[in-house]
Amino acid sequence: MDSVPLDKANNYSKEIIETRHRFIEEKTGVKLQHVNQYSFDPDTTKGNIENFIGVAQIPIGLAGPLQVNGEYAQGEFLIPLATAEGTLVASYNRGMRLINMCGGALTTISGNSMQRAPVFIFKNSRVARDFSHWVKEHYQEIKAACNSTTKIGRLIRIEQYLSNKFVFLRFNYTTGDAAGQNMVSKATFVGVQYILENFKDIDRFYMESNLATDKKASMINILSTRGKRVTAEVTIPGNLLQERMRTSVESLHYHFGIASVGGFVSGVNNNGLHAANGLTAMFIATGQDVANISESSTGIIYCEENPKDHLYISITLPSLIVASYGGGTGLATQRECQDILGCYGQDGVMKLAEIMAAAVLAGEISLAAAISSLDWIWSHERMGRNR
Amino acid sequence: MDSVPLDKANNYSKEIIETRHRFIEEKTGVKLQHVNQYSFDPDTTKGNIENFIGVAQIPIGLAGPLQVNGEYAQGEFLIPLATAEGTLVASYNRGMRLINMCGGALTTISGNSMQRAPVFIFKNSRVARDFSHWVKEHYQEIKAACNSTTKIGRLIRIEQYLSNKFVFLRFNYTTGDAAGQNMVSKATFVGVQYILENFKDIDRFYMESNLATDKKASMINILSTRGKRVTAEVTIPGNLLQERMRTSVESLHYHFGIASVGGFVSGVNNNGLHAANGLTAMFIATGQDVANISESSTGIIYCEENPKDHLYISITLPSLIVASYGGGTGLATQRECQDILGCYGQDGVMKLAEIMAAAVLAGEISLAAAISSLDWIWSHERMGRNR
Amino acid sequence: MDSVPLDKANNYSKEIIETRHRFIEEKTGVKLQHVNQYSFDPDTTKGNIENFIGVAQIPIGLAGPLQVNGEYAQGEFLIPLATAEGTLVASYNRGMRLINMCGGALTTISGNSMQRAPVFIFKNSRVARDFSHWVKEHYQEIKAACNSTTKIGRLIRIEQYLSNKFVFLRFNYTTGDAAGQNMVSKATFVGVQYILENFKDIDRFYMESNLATDKKASMINILSTRGKRVTAEVTIPGNLLQERMRTSVESLHYHFGIASVGGFVSGVNNNGLHAANGLTAMFIATGQDVANISESSTGIIYCEENPKDHLYISITLPSLIVASYGGGTGLATQRECQDILGCYGQDGVMKLAEIMAAAVLAGEISLAAAISSLDWIWSHERMGRNR
Amino acid sequence: MDSVPLDKANNYSKEIIETRHRFIEEKTGVKLQHVNQYSFDPDTTKGNIENFIGVAQIPIGLAGPLQVNGEYAQGEFLIPLATAEGTLVASYNRGMRLINMCGGALTTISGNSMQRAPVFIFKNSRVARDFSHWVKEHYQEIKAACNSTTKIGRLIRIEQYLSNKFVFLRFNYTTGDAAGQNMVSKATFVGVQYILENFKDIDRFYMESNLATDKKASMINILSTRGKRVTAEVTIPGNLLQERMRTSVESLHYHFGIASVGGFVSGVNNNGLHAANGLTAMFIATGQDVANISESSTGIIYCEENPKDHLYISITLPSLIVASYGGGTGLATQRECQDILGCYGQDGVMKLAEIMAAAVLAGEISLAAAISSLDWIWSHERMGRNR
Repeated sequence: MDSVPLDKANNYSKEIIETRHRFIEEKTGVKLQHVNQYSFDPDTTKGNIENFIGVAQIPIGLAGPLQVNGEYAQGEFLIPLATAEGTLVASYNRGMRLINMCGGALTTISGNSMQRAPVFIFKNSRVARDFSHWVKEHYQEIKAACNSTTKIGRLIRIEQYLSNKFVFLRFNYTTGDAAGQNMVSKATFVGVQYILENFKDIDRFYMESNLATDKKASMINILSTRGKRVTAEVTIPGNLLQERMRTSVESLHYHFGIASVGGFVSGVNNNGLHAANGLTAMFIATGQDVANISESSTGIIYCEENPKDHLYISITLPSLIVASYGGGTGLATQRECQDILGCYGQDGVMKLAEIMAAAVLAGEISLAAAISSLDWIWSHERMGRNR
Repeated sequence: MDSVPLDKANNYSKEIIETRHRFIEEKTGVKLQHVNQYSFDPDTTKGNIENFIGVAQIPIGLAGPLQVNGEYAQGEFLIPLATAEGTLVASYNRGMRLINMCGGALTTISGNSMQRAPVFIFKNSRVARDFSHWVKEHYQEIKAACNSTTKIGRLIRIEQYLSNKFVFLRFNYTTGDAAGQNMVSKATFVGVQYILENFKDIDRFYMESNLATDKKASMINILSTRGKRVTAEVTIPGNLLQERMRTSVESLHYHFGIASVGGFVSGVNNNGLHAANGLTAMFIATGQDVANISESSTGIIYCEENPKDHLYISITLPSLIVASYGGGTGLATQRECQDILGCYGQDGVMKLAEIMAAAVLAGEISLAAAISSLDWIWSHERMGRNR
Repeated sequence: MDSVPLDKANNYSKEIIETRHRFIEEKTGVKLQHVNQYSFDPDTTKGNIENFIGVAQIPIGLAGPLQVNGEYAQGEFLIPLATAEGTLVASYNRGMRLINMCGGALTTISGNSMQRAPVFIFKNSRVARDFSHWVKEHYQEIKAACNSTTKIGRLIRIEQYLSNKFVFLRFNYTTGDAAGQNMVSKATFVGVQYILENFKDIDRFYMESNLATDKKASMINILSTRGKRVTAEVTIPGNLLQERMRTSVESLHYHFGIASVGGFVSGVNNNGLHAANGLTAMFIATGQDVANISESSTGIIYCEENPKDHLYISITLPSLIVASYGGGTGLATQRECQDILGCYGQDGVMKLAEIMAAAVLAGEISLAAAISSLDWIWSHERMGRNR
Repeated sequence: MDSVPLDKANNYSKEIIETRHRFIEEKTGVKLQHVNQYSFDPDTTKGNIENFIGVAQIPIGLAGPLQVNGEYAQGEFLIPLATAEGTLVASYNRGMRLINMCGGALTTISGNSMQRAPVFIFKNSRVARDFSHWVKEHYQEIKAACNSTTKIGRLIRIEQYLSNKFVFLRFNYTTGDAAGQNMVSKATFVGVQYILENFKDIDRFYMESNLATDKKASMINILSTRGKRVTAEVTIPGNLLQERMRTSVESLHYHFGIASVGGFVSGVNNNGLHAANGLTAMFIATGQDVANISESSTGIIYCEENPKDHLYISITLPSLIVASYGGGTGLATQRECQDILGCYGQDGVMKLAEIMAAAVLAGEISLAAAISSLDWIWSHERMGRNR
């Protein structure tokens, strides 16, 4: 088969896109009737996609309002959720209503950094160890090199992990309102060049070797943060749980204990329930790099009965990777969803992170209550497809 | 703030959707111009979304052709990738061209099961242990109960995990062409009812407690499969690596060794590079439950120099959750993308799993080569946005 | 330096041992005065040690009695603990007294298997997958081959794990009263020979590749058991906690919740406190393979307030590797300690596993109470060394 | 049953020990003939044991000499190994001889710290986050408080891990020649008192909650070191592997690749083979806290063919907890074994850590070679017991 048609002069023109449509029809017999319908100028996708042929149309449902009591997000928010999974919007909505009745979710950001982690290989562990000292001593020079590449990204810390004859350097940056993976790649690359030029005994190096860990869930991200580390929490009176959710403080608290054991046994990266569901729907709607769900879906949930007959519940997302600028955030529908949340552009990213954490909390409460009250499956049956 | 407007009689009508648009404008000042443009009848999204307001338009780029030598997928395939991450399509394409030059990717499915894992709680561990024996003895009855709920889902195995005074039962099913989470929930629920009625000493139970592990990465999924367990592999001559990728067998093989160490140290759920990238783009395009990227992005990569001056590389995805029917697969653009792949509907799911694994392999080769040849960042700079 | 002196004719004679003592004195200047004092005939250590020079004398303290309500261990037991860590015996003793006041610890064994896990390597994943089917079809023949090597070991299950072009077979055996690592190695080796002779397309194999996982903590052992899977549990009235331990049900239960979060964040292999302490002391005393502490120290703890103002606490040891026969169990002091427990020899191993689990539980309660009541360090200060 | 006899005036006297012997005989019928034989004054075990009744006699075999090329350990060492596992000494010896033929093992220490990790609990995550900033601002005062308790321990770093409404502070110390667990407990306790007195909004705290992680294997210890982080490495010519070990560079290197995959799949805490074996034998011999095998047995192995037809192999032990002073190191036989190594007392601990790492490397080489050459089981059969 030929390659996908390309136009080096203007690869986003109506003509080349239509040529591709004919190519698809020729090769597969599929005549596009939906993928080829979109509301924006394809030129605006330059830098976001190659070989453009159209769009995936993902249904958006509106959840909320959700009361968020954050440091950046304050007030009620409507939450656009892009998903094809029946009951998801309804379930999150149910949790949001309950949170609102409790006065809203308190949100706090306690960490913020994006990483790139090159590895340096030496003749032996002795030289590796000496290199590790050298890096500490030359931190200021390395930092200057990294920061020279970007006005927004700032190197804040280099973590070191030594093993065998390797030194893994994990460069940590703040990245403004961008998620920042590209920004930190470029910055680290220049930092690495400084290192390569000034420490003579490096045998070889790779720009990445599983210490970042981009697009993957990991213990290092749980411990050391990737993107934003954000917590959402709420205290729910027992009577609300009974009236609204047909369950009890005791049952939800008990489930937390069991789920802690279950998560320990299964080696899961999230001892909660389904943070991935709400996050994915918000990521798609707001133009995030959805592949980061692999990291961002990690979560740490905690419950207690405190005060008496109240359920305190909180979730920490230790590696939430979000942006209010750059990447896909400025695309047509994505920007509108960012605007619905009031987050697009400068100074929006922390607000966005807080709203997302609060929404995730709503989903945890809703599903935990459903499990406790046994109506989980029935709700799927009622609202979901028949298979 | 009021709730999102609802019409109990017809919640997908033009009127109620427009009412919601006005509600958004009123509450947030955002006048939708893109989200509200879609090419299908909103009625078709019943069962997929609640509180419909429109769509997210995610750009699709066309990669391929990719030669797949599977048991279900045989031939050349064009791969629609829905993403907003610049260079992703180009990078996967580069890998696909190389795979084609090597004769295509061999793909093999070695596992297939979907789970639900209720937990049963007893007075003490002694009764729990006795229950565990009882379940083994009554497997046929439990199976009959489960299978009575579905023509497609078939219970194939109940794994047992005992801890403290708990027994976690992990019900494993085949689910035809659906991903099957709802199907197995319903089936397990009926199996659980049989259990609750026939084993008298159960104190309490929950339908889920982190042993499934739905929407989460976990060791149990790596070990015991969730969805499809599928491997893609190829052997690449060294001269192709040099000419096409500006790198070498030795450098890629060496990187695998370092990345194995790095992954061990960081506790990552994928010792490869970025399976999540390609999978997410295919998931969005083909109507998968994108939140399953949390599990599906898990991978096990392996390289060797074999035969001499050739790189053998393979990746196993132990928990790839896909469907060719049900969920979002039948929505307008999603169905078209399924059709481009020739997978929609009956008997398509295994083919789809094979194609996805082959595409993931292409992405691994491409990025690994880029890391080895140091042009990784530059390619982002050339084709990506400026932040 | 020369090699350690050896006497091929009789390597456990008084003469060769003394020759070694002179060799040590010559080479290091150390004149042994204690290592060379032991109460048994060195000949009895054949099969347990090579290059015998004497013994390590590890102090034994006596804890207990401990009331165990097991299926094998029933009654009060005195527990010999071999350790040099001050306060360990006192701390375990404190927990045992409390357990006794509650009527003893209930113990239950829910799993029992020892493994060897060879890996088979194939041309590609397709052949690997076919091999996996072949093994299932030839299970009876493989089992017969394995069981032909031992009267005691019985193959009970072959687990399969497929990845890339590899099939890891995890052979599970019961091994009577022995820990059984050597027994299952021999048995598996013969099973492997059957496989190698009858499945033609195997490229290579190794007898071990990290799926067993001998002498290492692992998720697979938590999930699938290695050695004995045993639980000990007790319910403690709140007034006893207050009077005897200066703490409360609430404080201990609360700590369990925090420790669950802490363990999740740190990626620990035991969400309890210090099972390794008591187990190591019992392992040394009773002639276990102490290196198995790496696996055996894994534990799953769980607490709840149930009934009101009572603390239910239990610990499951999923990979406790013990023997009442074979290995070091028959050596002079080791056998005496086995006899103190009434476990030596035939039918003793299950009893021993139950006693050990109950003793571990005592240690968990004691330290958890000390942490809660803040006197932990002070107790170290009072009874421990000054550094 | 009565409690174990106690003499508050002199609990290590001949009389009380004999009273205990009679107690054992009365209660269990066991007349001690070996446990009660030891070569030292029981008074010397004060601070090491309570309720002393005698000793476990663990056979010691002498391995070596082993050439270590460390920064602290330089030259040939004889290694006392206390074990009851047949073939262990022989197997390690085989590896040592090979290392010697290659010029010895290079050893490097790249990390050194001992931890205690209290957790602080707050009203909500906002206060927790503010506390985290406060701790950074008051590091000097906290450090002064900690260091006031010990002349030897020095606080070097406080790591912070935030989750939910908790702040886990991981205090890192250097501890001279002691392992230091007690030292850092006391120091941290005083640091905690400073914190409790000066930050007003703490709800509650516990001195430990699974972030240390004492007596347990964990990811945090792999990443952040506990005790010593030490690497041993050697390069072995292919002809030596063939002549001495009946295997090849290729086979061992290939096995490393497979074992990396196997370890990833099984979730093991050591991608090598059996570090626990040698470490446990050295720990028992030299008076270490043997329960620390749970942490210390963690390892990171790496192999490559470099230069051509040579096997480079190294192992990093990221959490090796050892002492040359304090704990059990000064007991009778233990001290003699420390003296054989030339490590006892001041400035011995780094030397000891290096020797241990080198010995572990010898064991890895030996067993890896045995697996590769298939003679592993036969060697057990020849030298081991018959079950």
